[in-house]
Parts: sequence; C-alpha cells; structure tokens
Amino acid sequence: MIDFNYWSPTYIAFGRGKESRTGELVRRFGGHKALLHYGGGSAVRSGLLDRVKASLAEAGVGFVELGGVKPNPRSSLIEEGVRLAIAEGVDFLLAVGGGSVVDSSKAIAIGAANGGEWRRYYVGREVKVKPAIPAALPVGVVLTIAAAGSEGSPNSVVNLEPENLKRAAGGDILRPKFAVMNPELTMSLPPFQTACGLADMFAHLCERYFSPTADVVLSDNLCEAVMRAVVEEGAKVMANPTDYQARANIMWAGTLAHNDVCGAGRVQDWSSHGIEHELSALYDCAHGAGLAVVMPAWMTYVHAADDARFARFARNVFGVGVGESDAKAALDGIAAFRAWLKSLGLPLNFAELGAREEDIPFLVRKLNLSGNTLGGFMPLADDDVAAIYRLCL
Amino acid sequence: MIDFNYWSPTYIAFGRGKESRTGELVRRFGGHKALLHYGGGSAVRSGLLDRVKASLAEAGVGFVELGGVKPNPRSSLIEEGVRLAIAEGVDFLLAVGGGSVVDSSKAIAIGAANGGEWRRYYVGREVKVKPAIPAALPVGVVLTIAAAGSEGSPNSVVNLEPENLKRAAGGDILRPKFAVMNPELTMSLPPFQTACGLADMFAHLCERYFSPTADVVLSDNLCEAVMRAVVEEGAKVMANPTDYQARANIMWAGTLAHNDVCGAGRVQDWSSHGIEHELSALYDCAHGAGLAVVMPAWMTYVHAADDARFARFARNVFGVGVGESDAKAALDGIAAFRAWLKSLGLPLNFAELGAREEDIPFLVRKLNLSGNTLGGFMPLADDDVAAIYRLCL
Repeated sequence: MIDFNYWSPTYIAFGRGKESRTGELVRRFGGHKALLHYGGGSAVRSGLLDRVKASLAEAGVGFVELGGVKPNPRSSLIEEGVRLAIAEGVDFLLAVGGGSVVDSSKAIAIGAANGGEWRRYYVGREVKVKPAIPAALPVGVVLTIAAAGSEGSPNSVVNLEPENLKRAAGGDILRPKFAVMNPELTMSLPPFQTACGLADMFAHLCERYFSPTADVVLSDNLCEAVMRAVVEEGAKVMANPTDYQARANIMWAGTLAHNDVCGAGRVQDWSSHGIEHELSALYDCAHGAGLAVVMPAWMTYVHAADDARFARFARNVFGVGVGESDAKAALDGIAAFRAWLKSLGLPLNFAELGAREEDIPFLVRKLNLSGNTLGGFMPLADDDVAAIYRLCL
Repeated sequence: MIDFNYWSPTYIAFGRGKESRTGELVRRFGGHKALLHYGGGSAVRSGLLDRVKASLAEAGVGFVELGGVKPNPRSSLIEEGVRLAIAEGVDFLLAVGGGSVVDSSKAIAIGAANGGEWRRYYVGREVKVKPAIPAALPVGVVLTIAAAGSEGSPNSVVNLEPENLKRAAGGDILRPKFAVMNPELTMSLPPFQTACGLADMFAHLCERYFSPTADVVLSDNLCEAVMRAVVEEGAKVMANPTDYQARANIMWAGTLAHNDVCGAGRVQDWSSHGIEHELSALYDCAHGAGLAVVMPAWMTYVHAADDARFARFARNVFGVGVGESDAKAALDGIAAFRAWLKSLGLPLNFAELGAREEDIPFLVRKLNLSGNTLGGFMPLADDDVAAIYRLCL
C-alpha cells in the first residue's frame, strides 16, 4: 500500500424527496446566492427544478439560473457562467443534473473565484503535475443520473472549444460540499443513458483495480464488491427502470466508485479514460459509450502484463475462469465483461460508436503524450495507444 | 435501502512518517493551542510523543498535556481534561493513541465547548434519541492501534464512574477533523492488543451486516469485502507483527469498518456492542476481548431469525457451508468465526475473560433496557440478553 491522503467530505443526503433539503444545505455550507446550473429540459419538465427553487426560496437563498449544459460540457457555456456568477455576485454553485452539469459547475466555481480565470487549470496528459487551484466557490449537487461520480470527486472534465479538447482539472477544493441523491429522480432516464452510467462507474473501478500495487487486499476486495453490485443491480435496473432498490444501489455505487474509497493506497491507471476522452471530444459521443468501446480493447492489449490480476477479476467479479489457467481466465473475464456491456445495449466498436478508423492518427496526436507514457498498469506509448484504438475497430 | 445521510469528512494522512504533519493539520483545521491527550508510556517510550510535539512546535501550535488514559476511558480523567482545557483556553483536542484516547478526547472536546457539561450527552440504551451535542472543540487523531475506528466515527464511549457505566455519545460534530495513520506505529503492539483490535473492527462490520434491511446488495458486498481483508491480513499480522502491508491493510480496514461507508442505507443492530459494554465496564476487560466472547454467542442465539443471511456470511466471508443447507451453513459460519477468534488468541467464554455467571442478572439490569428491546436483526428483551450471556459460559 502506498502512502496516501484521503479526504471525502461531501455530505450525502440520500433518499426519496431529499431535494427538498437543497436550500437548507446551501445555507449550511455558506451559500446566500447561488448560480443554479442545469442541462436540458428534463429537470424542467419533471418539475425537479421548480422543487429545487422552492427549497431555495424557503431557505432564503437567492439564485440566478443558467441552463443548457450539454454532455461533454462546453467551454463557451462555462465562460458565460463565469461572467454571470461574477456579475451577479453569487457565492455558491448549485448543479442540478449529472456529471456534465457538475463538471461545468466546478469550472464556473473556479472562474468565479479567480477573477474569471479557469482554463489554465484544465490540462492534458502532457502535464504531469496539474496546477494547483487557488480558490473555488463551494459547489452543491442535486444528482439526476448515477454515473460520473463527480458529486463526490475532486475532478472536473470539460470540452475546450474551438479545438474540442477534453481536459481535466483536479483538486480537493473541487469536492462538492453536498450531494442530494434521490434514486427516484433517475427512474425516467432513457435506457441508453442508464447503461452509459453503469459503464462509466464500472470503468472508474477498473482504473483503480488494474494497478501495479498488488499488496492492497482491502482495496481489491472493495473494488470487486462494488463491481459485483453494479453488474447485479445494473441488470435489474435495465429490466425494470423503476426498481427503486436497484436504482438506489447503483446511485450510491456511482459515488463510491469515484470518491476514491476504493482506490486509496494504490497506484491507479486511467489509461482508458484518457483514450476515451479523445473519442467523446471528437465525436461528441457519450463518455460511457466510449468507455464501453475502449475498456475491453485496453484490457485485451494489456492483460498479459498481469494475467493473475485479470484472472482474479474474471473469477471474483464475473464468476468465470474458475479452475482455468490465469491466462485463459483473463480472456474469459474480458469476454464476460464485453458480454455484460453488450447486454446493456452499449456500442462495442468504432462503427457502433460513430468513430472512424482514419482518425486514429489524429486521436493519438490529440492525446498528446509528448514522448511520455500513459497509465500505470502497463505504461503505454503512442504506438500502444494506436494499437488499442485499432482493437476498437 | 433506507434513506440516509452520510458525512465522513475526516482527512486521512496515511503512511510512514505522517505524524510529522500533525502540527500542520492542527493549524489547517483551526487549532492554535491543543490539549495533547494520550495514554500510558508506549507513546512516550517510542518517541512518538516527542515527534508530535516537535511537529506542533514547528507549526507554531501551543499545547498542554494530559496523559494517563486507560482502556475503557474514565470519567474522572475526562473531568480533569475539561477543567484543564477550559483553564488553558485550548481550542483543539489532539488525541495520540487508540480508541480510548480518542473517545476520551471527544468527551473533553464536548465539555470544553459547553462550559464543562459533557456527561448529559453520554446515555445508555434506555434513551432512544440521544441528546444533540450543541458544540464541541475540533478533535484530531494520531492513531496508534487499528481497532475502534473512532478516528473516523461520530461516536464516543466512556466509563462513567463511580458506577462503571459504559455510556455513549454520538453526533457528526464528534467526527475527527483529521487522522494521522502510520502503520509502523502499530508494529510494536502486543499480540493480544492487535487481536482485540481485529475482533473490534470485525464486530463493527457484523453490527452493520446482520441487518433486517435485505435489499442493500452494495452494502452487503462492502461488509464482506472488508471482513475478508480483516481475516486474511489479520492472520499475516499475527504471524509477522512487522509486516507493513498487512498492518496497513488492517489499519485502513479499521477506519472503513466504522466510518459507516459499509453501513449506509441499512438498519444496523449493535446488540453485541451493547451486551459487551456491560462486560468491559464491570470487569475492565478489553472491549475486543469481550466482543470475542459475546459475538459468537449472539450469533448462536439469533441466527435462526435469518439463516439465509448467516449462510451468506459463512460462504462469502469464511468460504464454508458451500453446498450445504442455509441452516447448516449458518452454523458452519459461526464455527468458522469462533475458530478465527481462537486462532487470534482471544478469550471465547466468561471464564477466559474473567467474567462470572452469578453476575448475569446484574449485567442485564445494568444494560437497562427498561422494557424496550435491543437490536434490529432480532429484537432482544431482557430474557434474551440473559440467555446470550449464558451462551458465553
């Protein structure tokens, strides 16, 4: 186990109707005037936004609104949010939505607290040490999809226009102060979005699990525990979208998959995320869908670096490969993982995702490793990344 | 999954030499003058206390000292600490030690912030709703034993003299601001103390796992994940007390077993803890040793209320009872648990613990259910508790 610092201070209010506590929670964490940030029409149509506004009014919290966040949140809307936040003197960012809304809110929270500057904290793989974020407004979340885990994470990923570069900022200062998590709010999600969320949270666990730090029994067990719950409860949710208990298990799993309780004390990888981000930046596909394509390809390319670990994954998560050699079990596990993704209705290759073989050299250039390598399980150079993209064909 | 609020904001600094950050962390969480609270001589002899003092001095944190905390921390020392804290105007409680030191610090933190009043917040099982704690000084921890989990929990259990009543206070305000966790500090523990710690953290998981809330797949998986790590790494630690990786896994497990990440969303039980607390209060035995006697007896008495759950425990934690009926597997699991406790060198009955059969009526009276029942898995009345004590013979 490597040395680590762990801090996951987000207050979770979990259960039916908890959005009625939003205003109280904004006040509790120091907010008097919030920028209410959200996406498209579903939060409006469902009445959620009205309930949140009523809660803010009841708690005496003022607010201004900015809707229109898209998946792969755009820098242009962030710029608009920063201007609005500064002009209106807001002291709190309230995200009502999923990971894209939360990540957009985090970017605005940085800009509003640093005289408009936020872009410089969003960097690519070529920067080994991210610049420290000096200040950020507090962020609170009313979550509407179980997926990204951004409601408990210190990270934010956005799409920098006009180049469509997907870049990330990170720092404990970005951990949300609170997350309101009502599983009922996720019941009306289209199946494809639910499935993308499942792939995303599962990938967050894989990036921690496939680690060169082999002595962390506890973390191995925790990753497998959450993975199994995602597979088992995910199947229930796809079969019955209004299964409250399954929705609840998945929603909490999405947070635990990414607040780092499952990753503390080990080297993590994050290659698949890096490789995927170039896809969703270029093609504007869903991050979870891109991961469904990339993760099995990455696994296929790297498993031989530690077949014992992949065999453990196969046996303990999918219950396959028992009694087989590690090398055979590793392949069985990858096949089972791919079959699970297929059962969720997710794309499994470039064609199904809408990506193009001829773009591979461009994708590799955009990833911009600059002679460095990617990932910790098996360090990947440009050629390796290109090979993994080809395995996605 | 039942509705829940979850807040575990303790900052964890984990790894070798992390005690050198103590002063910086006290400052970060608002402390200028600390009451440095500790137990017996080992923190002094090992040089730990000097290193902590040097770190405080380096960070410009003033301090006064109060040593002498005993297991089952005494109210008389707490009173002394409260007087000292108020007289010296300290604004931070720094616990250097294990669960007893942390719990004693939490009590002083309450008293110092409430004009000396702390006892009224420590109540027994007869009080269904604990009185809310209006204020408490911030508490920080330098942990020296993997056991109680108090470094991340909202609870404190102390021994009220002269009646030797073991009573508990609880509230998120008692969650420590930080915990410094250096596994090397636990290497010199006597085997019996290490074993008591293992029993304590395992019991914390059992109290959450044996629940009437059967729909929380995620939490079931998490409890089993940490239990298995405690069993596996516990054996390594007992065989080789200076195995850093095993010590590290156990130390982090002790925190996760009790910061409620494994229990969120389910009804919990806590009968065994209640039944044990009367033993350690009366006989001044180690809490973990008492749990080693009580837990298997409790299991034996209640398993038939849900043999399927006990069978799951047997199969998923100890790998026994596979292919058996649930009723048979349940008994196999309890036997395996008892064998594990025995392998740790822990007492398994009243005689080995130093408890007496003739005290059972007195123990039941002291537990003071006042006509209420204890626990959620199978509610226990006075007669049931007496029967469980008799199963400890």
